[in-house]
Amino acid sequence: MPRPDLHSTRERIRQGHATAADALQAARAAAEAPENAHVFVSTRWDAALAEAQRTAPGTPLDGLPVSIKDLFDFEGEATRAGSVALKDAPVAKSDAVAIARLRAAGGVVVGRTNMTEFAFSGVGINPHYGTPANPADPKTPRIPGGSSSGAAVSVATGAAFIGMGSDTGGSIRIPAALCGIVGFKNTARLTPLQGAYPLSSTLDTVCAMTRSVRDAVLAHEILAGRQVARSDKPLSGYRLAIARTQMQDHLDATVARAFERTLSRLAHAGAKITEVALTQIQDLGTIQSTGGFTAAESYAWHRRLLEQQGSRYDPRVRLRIERGANMKAWEYVELHQARTAWIAEVESALAGYDAVLSPTVPMVAPAIADVAPGAERDEAFFRTNALLLRNTSVVNMLDGCALSLPCHAPDELPVGLMAWHGAMRDDTILNLSLQIEHLLSSASPN
Amino acid sequence: MPRPDLHSTRERIRQGHATAADALQAARAAAEAPENAHVFVSTRWDAALAEAQRTAPGTPLDGLPVSIKDLFDFEGEATRAGSVALKDAPVAKSDAVAIARLRAAGGVVVGRTNMTEFAFSGVGINPHYGTPANPADPKTPRIPGGSSSGAAVSVATGAAFIGMGSDTGGSIRIPAALCGIVGFKNTARLTPLQGAYPLSSTLDTVCAMTRSVRDAVLAHEILAGRQVARSDKPLSGYRLAIARTQMQDHLDATVARAFERTLSRLAHAGAKITEVALTQIQDLGTIQSTGGFTAAESYAWHRRLLEQQGSRYDPRVRLRIERGANMKAWEYVELHQARTAWIAEVESALAGYDAVLSPTVPMVAPAIADVAPGAERDEAFFRTNALLLRNTSVVNMLDGCALSLPCHAPDELPVGLMAWHGAMRDDTILNLSLQIEHLLSSASPN
Repeated sequence: MPRPDLHSTRERIRQGHATAADALQAARAAAEAPENAHVFVSTRWDAALAEAQRTAPGTPLDGLPVSIKDLFDFEGEATRAGSVALKDAPVAKSDAVAIARLRAAGGVVVGRTNMTEFAFSGVGINPHYGTPANPADPKTPRIPGGSSSGAAVSVATGAAFIGMGSDTGGSIRIPAALCGIVGFKNTARLTPLQGAYPLSSTLDTVCAMTRSVRDAVLAHEILAGRQVARSDKPLSGYRLAIARTQMQDHLDATVARAFERTLSRLAHAGAKITEVALTQIQDLGTIQSTGGFTAAESYAWHRRLLEQQGSRYDPRVRLRIERGANMKAWEYVELHQARTAWIAEVESALAGYDAVLSPTVPMVAPAIADVAPGAERDEAFFRTNALLLRNTSVVNMLDGCALSLPCHAPDELPVGLMAWHGAMRDDTILNLSLQIEHLLSSASPN
Repeated sequence: MPRPDLHSTRERIRQGHATAADALQAARAAAEAPENAHVFVSTRWDAALAEAQRTAPGTPLDGLPVSIKDLFDFEGEATRAGSVALKDAPVAKSDAVAIARLRAAGGVVVGRTNMTEFAFSGVGINPHYGTPANPADPKTPRIPGGSSSGAAVSVATGAAFIGMGSDTGGSIRIPAALCGIVGFKNTARLTPLQGAYPLSSTLDTVCAMTRSVRDAVLAHEILAGRQVARSDKPLSGYRLAIARTQMQDHLDATVARAFERTLSRLAHAGAKITEVALTQIQDLGTIQSTGGFTAAESYAWHRRLLEQQGSRYDPRVRLRIERGANMKAWEYVELHQARTAWIAEVESALAGYDAVLSPTVPMVAPAIADVAPGAERDEAFFRTNALLLRNTSVVNMLDGCALSLPCHAPDELPVGLMAWHGAMRDDTILNLSLQIEHLLSSASPN
């Protein structure tokens, strides 16, 4: 039984069955449950309650709780990006633009969520502030996915309706998939980066996780300051592709089963699904062989801090940032040119399709114990990280948009289905995802 | 007595006093005059005449001759960018987008103009194809300015009404100033780069030289595919600035006299002219100390060709491109970040002004003999080049727009007045320049 989403809660408030204060108390109870230690790095419940009580009725978010990843500026708080190297960071003088938009729409910020240090990995381990446990498995502590780890758990467990985060290689979609919620990575240019601690100035996208696709549409409309063009086109009206190259390699049994089952339900509902080769995905390794955008751009940002505080970095993060130190400018320029050419090729290959469907990540959440801090587990950590990012990062390189929504059965660990395409297909991806979610939430035909 | 511009010639054609074929014959005669050797690297007079004769009457350019810098693709011709290292370049399969727009508007391409090799300098010397002589001084062969050297001379001598070129640090405005014509560098994003041989992917602007400001407006409207918002606001309605920092340093006597005289005529006509410090201009040296955009970006483009054909490069050009080899990616990323911050500061300093006025270049055209190829003149060449680019390149770093128009007296060597501002002020700069040109072409009050 999924938790009520923002829309249904707002409806209850508007009908007088509940208040924003009630929702905030329930969120606080969820956040303060012992199993949710490490989800927030700081909270502001009393201030949030006061804000909820004075939110003008009828605003889009109606005073409901939202969480913000520790990389967003929030007036009067220091932005530490999951690090202890920024212990002395000054407090922010104003809210990040995205956060200001959420608050102006009636969202009430309840706290800053934990994250991978500097957003640099898809696993969600944080050696400084602890690792939030994935709520999907009460028996085995599993990773939540990252880098927006606390954001995902805050939304999945009821501590927030919108978990604000960022997605540079999959940091919204990976934790959404592993925790069983919805994560939408819009086309990067549609949402403002100002006031968000950068990882890659080329690839960073400010976006959010929610409990339903309709909530993802609402959050995106607020963050992007625009209206999504709605369409009720049925699934039978979409031309869908599945990519033969890489995207379906090495799926674990649960993911393979859930993905196949989902495709067959979509086909049963009339969706036209075609396999495409999309061999261009193979070229990404070569294109990024000199280091990729994130290494060079994060090194430019971090090099002074590394000199002063390098020993306080998570060694796994430091290692990856320092890979950017020796990349040449011409290699970086060529990387941009190669990306532009690659995007044109992929756009051309996908021209006949409304969206591609892929497993968001090829595995269910691994146990924290297998990838926890410690040099003896570094190899497992980096292998897991590469697998987690493999499918999602393709969309960032494409400058595209993608939505991950749950497609697992109630007795399975969470599995994400990712619908994606190139830049500015956001509305199609959102409308399609509404249809898919509706289909999957109805009783199975079997 | 300035040569008739495109507008007046078009008017004569439309009134039946001349034909496009007549204009083309006159252009050919100018191009084939002995003093204009080295202006074109190739011509196509017969094909041009046939095109002129079948141009639909009433098209904006009405079959009139235009020249294209050797860096533009033209279907069926090889693009060599003033180099002999590209001797084996394949012929272009289609026209550069800007050239296609000119031709669709009724422009007839008469030939490819000479240029600084790979557009890499503001002097206009070309050791492979010779250096076009500046037509302003029949006694002493002087440099035309570059890199669009042949383009400027083609327009100044009557061989073309529009000289298509590019401006990365001043390559349209410098030769326009030194040859006594008009050069407009629009905001880079407004005109298409596709099919133009690149120098700096960050700074390159495709634009043109003309004989009058109204022709510059027309050429820009065609190249940008947009309408300029016209304004008849008088000079007294403009808030003009002159920059105290750098822009007026080390002016030679002719430039200093022409600039002062022009300012006093503008003031006499009611223009409000304020001196601003604009100390930010001093910071450009530091910002670009790791090499600048052009070195890194041109090295990325040229490094393979340098391996194979490096010995065929102009050694002065090769030296400057190879400076980009060792720049680090993080330095390049920081350069982009520093530029963004610098633009914000300059925009803020100029917020109260409609335009800044500066001498386009601080000197009149030096003699070719002083900077001709030869290691013993390299120091003079690089010093001259730096001075020529000093004022114009500020506008490229600003991502801005600028128009250079002649402001010298009939008995002086040409001097350019540059009106400039930040991005997307193109229409204001054009409207202001129309007013200034009108004032300067009227009889002097003295």
